[in-house]
Amino acid sequence: MSALQETEVTTDVAAVMAEVGRNARAASNILATATTDQKNAALIAAAEALKTAMPDILSANARDMAAAKENGITGAFLDRLELNADRVASMIAGLHAIADLPDPVGTTIAEWDVPSGLHIERVRTPLGVIGIIFESRPNVTADAGALCLKAGNAAILRGGSDSFHSSRAIHACLVTGLNSAGLPEHAIQIVPTTDRAAVGEMLKGLDTNIDVIVPRGGAGLVARVQAEARVPVFAHLEGLCHLYIDKSAKLEMAVEIAVNSKMRRTGICGAAETLLIHSDIVDTHLGPIVEALQAAGCEVRGDETVLAQIADVKLANDLDWNTEYLDAIIAVKIVDDADAAIDHIAAHSSHHTEAIVAEDQAVVEKFFARIDSAILLHNASTQFADGGEFGMGAEIGIATGKMHARGPVGVEQLTSFKYLVRGTGQTRP
Amino acid sequence: MSALQETEVTTDVAAVMAEVGRNARAASNILATATTDQKNAALIAAAEALKTAMPDILSANARDMAAAKENGITGAFLDRLELNADRVASMIAGLHAIADLPDPVGTTIAEWDVPSGLHIERVRTPLGVIGIIFESRPNVTADAGALCLKAGNAAILRGGSDSFHSSRAIHACLVTGLNSAGLPEHAIQIVPTTDRAAVGEMLKGLDTNIDVIVPRGGAGLVARVQAEARVPVFAHLEGLCHLYIDKSAKLEMAVEIAVNSKMRRTGICGAAETLLIHSDIVDTHLGPIVEALQAAGCEVRGDETVLAQIADVKLANDLDWNTEYLDAIIAVKIVDDADAAIDHIAAHSSHHTEAIVAEDQAVVEKFFARIDSAILLHNASTQFADGGEFGMGAEIGIATGKMHARGPVGVEQLTSFKYLVRGTGQTRP
Repeated sequence: MSALQETEVTTDVAAVMAEVGRNARAASNILATATTDQKNAALIAAAEALKTAMPDILSANARDMAAAKENGITGAFLDRLELNADRVASMIAGLHAIADLPDPVGTTIAEWDVPSGLHIERVRTPLGVIGIIFESRPNVTADAGALCLKAGNAAILRGGSDSFHSSRAIHACLVTGLNSAGLPEHAIQIVPTTDRAAVGEMLKGLDTNIDVIVPRGGAGLVARVQAEARVPVFAHLEGLCHLYIDKSAKLEMAVEIAVNSKMRRTGICGAAETLLIHSDIVDTHLGPIVEALQAAGCEVRGDETVLAQIADVKLANDLDWNTEYLDAIIAVKIVDDADAAIDHIAAHSSHHTEAIVAEDQAVVEKFFARIDSAILLHNASTQFADGGEFGMGAEIGIATGKMHARGPVGVEQLTSFKYLVRGTGQTRP
Repeated sequence: MSALQETEVTTDVAAVMAEVGRNARAASNILATATTDQKNAALIAAAEALKTAMPDILSANARDMAAAKENGITGAFLDRLELNADRVASMIAGLHAIADLPDPVGTTIAEWDVPSGLHIERVRTPLGVIGIIFESRPNVTADAGALCLKAGNAAILRGGSDSFHSSRAIHACLVTGLNSAGLPEHAIQIVPTTDRAAVGEMLKGLDTNIDVIVPRGGAGLVARVQAEARVPVFAHLEGLCHLYIDKSAKLEMAVEIAVNSKMRRTGICGAAETLLIHSDIVDTHLGPIVEALQAAGCEVRGDETVLAQIADVKLANDLDWNTEYLDAIIAVKIVDDADAAIDHIAAHSSHHTEAIVAEDQAVVEKFFARIDSAILLHNASTQFADGGEFGMGAEIGIATGKMHARGPVGVEQLTSFKYLVRGTGQTRP
């Protein structure tokens, strides 16, 4: 670890970050032609280092946890910050899983011949330098750093200041892995200061030494990124996911998918937040669905039609239709038909994931054609919105933008491409 | 044509552009599910309208040309601005060619099954609203508008003020086509003012009503876009293209490719600007290559080694290695080996297109692996850097960025995608 990285607080953030950027660019130039074996060796050695350093990591985390508690932090945030042996073991398993993924760099995406006799090949290349800005979960240090490395990119990681010591301890293991594989240690850097000005410097692009920013966080971070970013962004906005139960839905399936979409894990971006139910099935489906949700511990907020049917439901207000609860709360609205459901989704969705339960295939096709979200599911839980479930291996998150990466962002989405054209002396007439 | 579009100069540019943005978004929502037949009908009707309106277009262009001459504009700029019967015929042919292209929207890019039993499909979707900022060539109005339409996107076109009347006359024909096909006329809008503040409004994204900006122009526009853009950009920077002649190159092929790369058309972004020649072939190849270039009317500027060999060559200075001449001038440098050529390219390239002439396959593979430009060619002219030559049909330009679109930007590059996931009641354990 360099002297720079030992400095916890620095006065000249711009100069420090400029150096981070230059180091990242230099590392990315080497990584671009690193072999698959080298990258995998670094990942496996980093996993070993995490195992060895587990006591250090847990004690660094204890320091972060104590400081957070002193600052009055509680609940879900504290849970996300906490590391234990199981969570470190997950990180280790994650590094091995990323080592096992195919290397995307250099693979041919498409190839064809053209009438001039040229053979054209489109091959994957790294993106370059990826800046990742995240909040409390320190394990993102390992997951995101490893994914960037596998795709041949240098990473600049800026975690939440609450997880600073935990992230540094994890990062030290990644550096051990890079060193042991003969790769530049600046391939994965952690921002060496908790000063929030460092985020601003990253958003400005570090003098073109950052190629893309991946923001992972809540509304505050997202707003800052949208206002300040001068480089491309793979936006990971909120997941205001909708589940629509069509009048053609089977009751039992609707109940199971509604409960799973909301309650399997309430804190993930693929959790359903709004339930839309066709008005023709209010008498048959609404009761059982609401009862099952409540039995699972979910608070149900409904529109007036729902309230007229079910006693112990709170009235949903306008805010509810626009809220990502990330909690055991769901808003339920009765809609006249699939068109009304689609219109509601168009007005309120964050374009992450929406699902429909229906047997009527024409309604499903309309839902699929007319809704513009990253992931649309038919007769399946919204909680399948996940790179692992998509067969992509690890993911850095679910992108809600439409440029370059959309949906789960795995190693392939962290690449660009170039065209290799082979001729035999062709000139253009 | 609406009243708004009749207004040539307006005082409240922000309000006018905000309305343009809202209209574009509304149109894009309709275009997203327009059928292929509808889009093609609009393109063919627009081509018919161009034929009928040819006298109007030529007289509008005469007005622009007269004004440009009055403003002292000459040379290549004036040539780009000029329309004649042949150039209008090209636009008409272009619209037919775009109608003949396969519709990318709704096509399946990939599909697979996952262990949970879900079937996952990645299908192309339109991007939404595309803002295109271009300079003097009025034909971009038809080409870019048509490409956006084919990919289901609404277009906001902002041409150079010099071509304002020409662009409006062409745009009127596109609107005729849209109307006759029952598509919203705001699907292709032209910015109704020559006020440069309109460009600033577009770069701010018109309150999220522009999804991506495509800038086509010189250094001034590019710098403005990089400083001001708050939305994703498909950068179309300059083409500072290099041609490297390896010591293993066949002499005759090297001469032909050098002359073609530079002189076939000097004003296009795929024209070679710098020629790098291996030092081992100074005695055999340098003379014939320089003579052939000079015989074709090219001014040659060389480094000191070149000057030592050839009398009538000007000394190249540092500026020459960084200049996109777009003219009959080339800078020639002697390099020690392929590594030195690759290093020179890394230092000076705009990451557009580079070519190598070589018989040594190992050198070719090194050139392909180590250079990070959109297009790399072996034993072929740099002037093949073109969407048509790549078999993509028409293109909006060659993107030099690494996000989303890189290299030729055709209809497929003007799309995004979404995931359609089909289940049978799956919930996630």
